[in-house]
Amino acid sequence: MKASQTPLFTQKEDPKDAVVASHKLLSRAGYIKKQASGFYAYLPFGYIVHRKIEEIIRTKMNKYGAVETHLPVLTPAELWQVSGRWSSMGPEMMRLSDRHNVNFALGPTHEESITWLAKQYLHSYKQLPINFYQIGKKYRDEIRPRFGLIRCREFVMKDAYSFHIDDASLEETYQKMRECYREIFDECGLETLSVEADSGAMGGSGSEEFMVPSAIGEETLLLCPDNDCQYRSNQEKTMFKPQTPYSSDKSNAAAERVDTPDVKTVEEVANFLKAEKTSFIKSVIYENSSAVVLAFIPGDRDISETKLKNLSGEADLEMASPESIEKVSSAPPGFAGPFELNVKNGDEITVQGEKKNVIILYDKNLKNRGNLISGGNMADTHCINLQEARDFIIPEGEEYDLVQAKESDLCPKCGKHNLKSTKGIEVGHVFKLGKKYTEALDVSVLDAEGRPSTLTMGCYGIGVGRTLSTIVEQNYDEKGIIWPESAAPFRYYMIGISKTEEEKKEIDDLYERLIEKNISVYYDDRKERPGIKFNDADLTGFPFQITIGKNYFENKKIELKIRKTMQKSEMAFEELFS
Amino acid sequence: MKASQTPLFTQKEDPKDAVVASHKLLSRAGYIKKQASGFYAYLPFGYIVHRKIEEIIRTKMNKYGAVETHLPVLTPAELWQVSGRWSSMGPEMMRLSDRHNVNFALGPTHEESITWLAKQYLHSYKQLPINFYQIGKKYRDEIRPRFGLIRCREFVMKDAYSFHIDDASLEETYQKMRECYREIFDECGLETLSVEADSGAMGGSGSEEFMVPSAIGEETLLLCPDNDCQYRSNQEKTMFKPQTPYSSDKSNAAAERVDTPDVKTVEEVANFLKAEKTSFIKSVIYENSSAVVLAFIPGDRDISETKLKNLSGEADLEMASPESIEKVSSAPPGFAGPFELNVKNGDEITVQGEKKNVIILYDKNLKNRGNLISGGNMADTHCINLQEARDFIIPEGEEYDLVQAKESDLCPKCGKHNLKSTKGIEVGHVFKLGKKYTEALDVSVLDAEGRPSTLTMGCYGIGVGRTLSTIVEQNYDEKGIIWPESAAPFRYYMIGISKTEEEKKEIDDLYERLIEKNISVYYDDRKERPGIKFNDADLTGFPFQITIGKNYFENKKIELKIRKTMQKSEMAFEELFS
Repeated sequence: MKASQTPLFTQKEDPKDAVVASHKLLSRAGYIKKQASGFYAYLPFGYIVHRKIEEIIRTKMNKYGAVETHLPVLTPAELWQVSGRWSSMGPEMMRLSDRHNVNFALGPTHEESITWLAKQYLHSYKQLPINFYQIGKKYRDEIRPRFGLIRCREFVMKDAYSFHIDDASLEETYQKMRECYREIFDECGLETLSVEADSGAMGGSGSEEFMVPSAIGEETLLLCPDNDCQYRSNQEKTMFKPQTPYSSDKSNAAAERVDTPDVKTVEEVANFLKAEKTSFIKSVIYENSSAVVLAFIPGDRDISETKLKNLSGEADLEMASPESIEKVSSAPPGFAGPFELNVKNGDEITVQGEKKNVIILYDKNLKNRGNLISGGNMADTHCINLQEARDFIIPEGEEYDLVQAKESDLCPKCGKHNLKSTKGIEVGHVFKLGKKYTEALDVSVLDAEGRPSTLTMGCYGIGVGRTLSTIVEQNYDEKGIIWPESAAPFRYYMIGISKTEEEKKEIDDLYERLIEKNISVYYDDRKERPGIKFNDADLTGFPFQITIGKNYFENKKIELKIRKTMQKSEMAFEELFS
Repeated sequence: MKASQTPLFTQKEDPKDAVVASHKLLSRAGYIKKQASGFYAYLPFGYIVHRKIEEIIRTKMNKYGAVETHLPVLTPAELWQVSGRWSSMGPEMMRLSDRHNVNFALGPTHEESITWLAKQYLHSYKQLPINFYQIGKKYRDEIRPRFGLIRCREFVMKDAYSFHIDDASLEETYQKMRECYREIFDECGLETLSVEADSGAMGGSGSEEFMVPSAIGEETLLLCPDNDCQYRSNQEKTMFKPQTPYSSDKSNAAAERVDTPDVKTVEEVANFLKAEKTSFIKSVIYENSSAVVLAFIPGDRDISETKLKNLSGEADLEMASPESIEKVSSAPPGFAGPFELNVKNGDEITVQGEKKNVIILYDKNLKNRGNLISGGNMADTHCINLQEARDFIIPEGEEYDLVQAKESDLCPKCGKHNLKSTKGIEVGHVFKLGKKYTEALDVSVLDAEGRPSTLTMGCYGIGVGRTLSTIVEQNYDEKGIIWPESAAPFRYYMIGISKTEEEKKEIDDLYERLIEKNISVYYDDRKERPGIKFNDADLTGFPFQITIGKNYFENKKIELKIRKTMQKSEMAFEELFS
């Protein structure tokens, strides 16, 4: 391809809102252009790369037995209503009404839709397992679109959904997809870590994310440094294992209320009472429109909101209002505790006219402990000498993991090493979905014994645009992008430096010879100074640069530069064919 | 590919709402499935065909120098407001508001968006001409989606937009695109007619549609049967040339009102007055929210609504209400006429509180005529002896073509033959857009003399799904679809008939040998009766069927059937490689 046909759209300035390398470079090198917040146009080079990545994904998905389909992007509201996600998706889902006032959503994902399709065609276990995939647009109305293609509102995803007669079959496809994803990201030249991921919100039983380690990553990963253990987890999901076990000392002293005027936080009360933070019970209170959730955790730790949401089964939780806190703890914020609490699990309370269920959750690290301190459920008051089982009870089987794990906690798998933390960008996700959608849409087939059996599902996603920009995040220098060959728009960037029309003609002919041999080359035939072309070649970042100039006309030598190492070498033109 | 991996999704019944062959066959053969009115899911075979057609289009567009880009589908309202189409697009454009109440439209087309992109990057005539294209989703909220993929609400279109410094350059690209389209449709195995099309609504200066002649077509085409003339036109656009010129007889009799009680239509009045319909002036009155449009045409003809809209410059015109008619003609509906009319061109009237401009248009076939009859602008009254220039005046240069041409009118090009009519489905459209969008978005570049020059544009569209189903409309029989090779999901449909496990294994091996040679084959390895497989092979319609059975195990002969002719022949398996 020639610049006179497919122009370069390089620009001098970074976009004003660009803060990360991939967004700056893809914009300046003329790959993408923002049209609105979270909406990007792909310029010619950008779309070539996008399609190459799509094709890598498609080839690997086919290799692993998945079957390509294509579902409508605009999906009827009724499908989402059946699964309950019409309401639970909230404002992230973009919706519209048609001319007959029928509601639709722009699919942020397609579980309902593919399950609908499966219901039309799957009738017997003989058709299973089957793994449908598509490569198409998704829409998510992000609160804060940013980082260019990394978090935008319209984007292309490869989403796959597998259907199975039983868990063993699901497990088999799930493992195939993990292998498939490794091959896809390897082929894209991306180093990824696969980490255990939270699976609660979607109701599944197993889940792994493919993460690209990056300082700009929005996810925190906790990794066991031990090569034998290899525990890797999203912080949201990481089980908490304390570095030192909590003391289980107990005294016979009875629970007692003490005045703690003007001190509220664990820190302040610990100082005031001259006690360790580990002896405290931290009370955290969240709510949504239908529930108030109280959680009691060790005083030296923070709550994991993800775990809290999964264990309570409540979405959209926010910090509780002072009114709700007062209603459950009979005190202003800061003095709640498990001892002589005003409410119990399952109570219904009314806050500002709204009825809400009370949900109480205890962290397992409070089990069997004594000498504990908590809020006294009374203004300016705390309780000391609390003993679990005597002063409050954590019911059998309800010892939960509610604490947010963090760096230097013990690895919950090997229990030997301290976790290390790193940031990551999620590029792929594999997920055992289970029966949530097949139950909602009532999808069953006849099993080998002729009995109807509800199918179980897996789902598997890759963000194409995000993969594209993450490749850039891992492959650039101060001059520009450095594409791996698999994703580069072209293999060669060819620059001619001619002094006469004949020389120009000779270079044009050499380009034609490369094209005849099906060599992937972009020929910068603009009438520009060589310096501008060299800079654009580095900025656009194709793997190799060919310069044909004086040395060719005098000695028949061309120059080949490797973009990554900037190493240059001389060679005969014909060597390009080998 | 094997049925055990990519299943067949054939069905026994036609969809209840299917009335045309392509919709029935594509559904029954397991290519597509309706999810909601106007929204279709593509099953594996369907999406293979869709992607093959996309690739045919992409290859040809690249060959003709167009450059692939990709624009967001959800586009900001502000772009549409600048061009005025936010309001003129009406309910066909699907719209939504995001979480910040910012308005967006799902692009029914992308002129504004691509012009916005051009404005960001085009600065000099040296970058021109450039022809951007994309292959992506479009949304149109059709009042009546129907015929499966032929008229749906979400569909994939190839849309291209070229930018030029002058009309000569536009003409050159326009001609290239016409050639490109011919090659695309040829390659798809589609017979198309290119016809002159209406270009008024989009403000352009030249336009051609690629039509597939079909009894189910929603467009009426008028064609000159003469091979030298080759005039072909969409009825909407066809110039009217009467078979016999209208009489220009005039008498000296003065215009006169006559009572015509209980007769209103031209037919009734002609009978009543014992006059020819050709002597009549037919008055038609339309309106929208801002204008009332009166048109006067020969009494024996119908108005062309398309011409009326283009010439008046008013969109969304509907038949005028009795109130509006009374306001302009001082009479109930049925008695309007040009003589002593209550209003004149450019007047403003108020109808039911709304102010509207009066626009009056005369057909050129009323010019210089006498002995005319029209409504009398008074209840139950007509006027006779009307003479143009004396009793009403058609201003110089305002003799319009307002009549809908029809079959057996004279060809307006050669003037010798009578037009023939046929129905067609529009699959492609090439269009000289002109400066409508570049002026609205103020896109100019520096020309060779360094002066800013507003660009002129062309646009070129092909509906991918519509092309797909139109191929089926042209290629099927009572057994099913008959794909041309270029669009078929696979070249061969392979059926094995085995009696033992060893025979089955031998057939499996033959399939593997075909795959090794990269032969495009679908192997129906289901455990089903041969009859079911033969029927499905005919229904799904791949160009060739291979049967391997008894004759192979006894004589090493396979059977090859040509789907189109149903012709069968015996051959050695190895002959498939040649």
